[in-house]
Amino acid sequence: MERIDSKRTLRDVQQEVDNLIKVEWHSDYWAPLSSLARLTEEVGELAREINHHYGEKPKKADEGPGSIASEMGDILFILASLANSIGIDLDTSFEEVMAKYQKRDARRWS
Amino acid sequence: MERIDSKRTLRDVQQEVDNLIKVEWHSDYWAPLSSLARLTEEVGELAREINHHYGEKPKKADEGPGSIASEMGDILFILASLANSIGIDLDTSFEEVMAKYQKRDARRWS
Amino acid sequence: MERIDSKRTLRDVQQEVDNLIKVEWHSDYWAPLSSLARLTEEVGELAREINHHYGEKPKKADEGPGSIASEMGDILFILASLANSIGIDLDTSFEEVMAKYQKRDARRWS
Amino acid sequence: MERIDSKRTLRDVQQEVDNLIKVEWHSDYWAPLSSLARLTEEVGELAREINHHYGEKPKKADEGPGSIASEMGDILFILASLANSIGIDLDTSFEEVMAKYQKRDARRWS
Repeated sequence: MERIDSKRTLRDVQQEVDNLIKVEWHSDYWAPLSSLARLTEEVGELAREINHHYGEKPKKADEGPGSIASEMGDILFILASLANSIGIDLDTSFEEVMAKYQKRDARRWS
Repeated sequence: MERIDSKRTLRDVQQEVDNLIKVEWHSDYWAPLSSLARLTEEVGELAREINHHYGEKPKKADEGPGSIASEMGDILFILASLANSIGIDLDTSFEEVMAKYQKRDARRWS
Repeated sequence: MERIDSKRTLRDVQQEVDNLIKVEWHSDYWAPLSSLARLTEEVGELAREINHHYGEKPKKADEGPGSIASEMGDILFILASLANSIGIDLDTSFEEVMAKYQKRDARRWS
Repeated sequence: MERIDSKRTLRDVQQEVDNLIKVEWHSDYWAPLSSLARLTEEVGELAREINHHYGEKPKKADEGPGSIASEMGDILFILASLANSIGIDLDTSFEEVMAKYQKRDARRWS
């Protein structure tokens, strides 16, 4: 994967999702419980791929190669969509989780 | 919430997580199945909050106010951590999911 | 754990849940999306316990001992509750999944 | 669905799963984190079906009818498999969750 420089901010992510749904699709956000169900579905698809590559679940012959990376993109998309639908700024959320972890004893992690 | 201008890119997110774990905590990433389990746990906590605010689950008196926003921050943190641990660039993943949706019939969404 | 003989069938499970909710609590089932969110929450709690015992997530000092077994009981309860709410017989569902697996090549599993 | 009388107990469920994996497939249980990932995957598939029938996610033309009931059977199968692999008796787990709920104020539910 060629990794060109990207200046896409977290807020760009939320804005692009909003443009796609509102402007391009002339649509609207789902209710929060439906978006959550979709997030659950996408995390399940990531689980399948992770299990295939790092766990014990073998793939059926008719399953395509799949992609951990693309499942992660799907999770990010629905997360941004849910955040938009209820007015949450992911940048602020991330700022706060980093502040929380920086105060916390590192032994929590490893 | 005062929303000051933020230029934090998706790649900054992954870099900040890496700095925290590697440099500040002198630690290392979890194995993918453990990170996935943690993602499952964080999505479960978001589900609890979403159900409380938008669904039918009442809160126990001893549950704090909780926060949908902070659960989303936790999800973003573990997603970035899992991505880092297996060399995935979330910006590219998001780019690809947007390209996929832009080609797709909007009737899929609404 | 002393394991006394139990004749509780899968249908007893669904009946006991129905009695508790309808008769004892004079209540009703949640909408399916709310029950699903609750199932997501309970699976998240199981993930936390599994990760603690078999993965890499250490416990905070203020987390109680927790219990993989009790999280599994919670999952079974909400699964039976969701099944009841939409008229699904878990015994038939299990019958069918066993039939599916018995026809399937065992190499799918291990 | 014709619902014939079934005397399949919860312990029969765990025994049938054990027979299938150990005797018929000459195989063994997965490690707990892999079984958990599989549970996450199956809950994700249920989420997709629930969202289709009760939420806002429309189905693609190339998606089959799917079945909420069969996804529930898959969840029960992997739950029993995980329980077997770590020596948990689901009947006892269910007994305990019922005891917990019976003591609890019903206002927690509805």
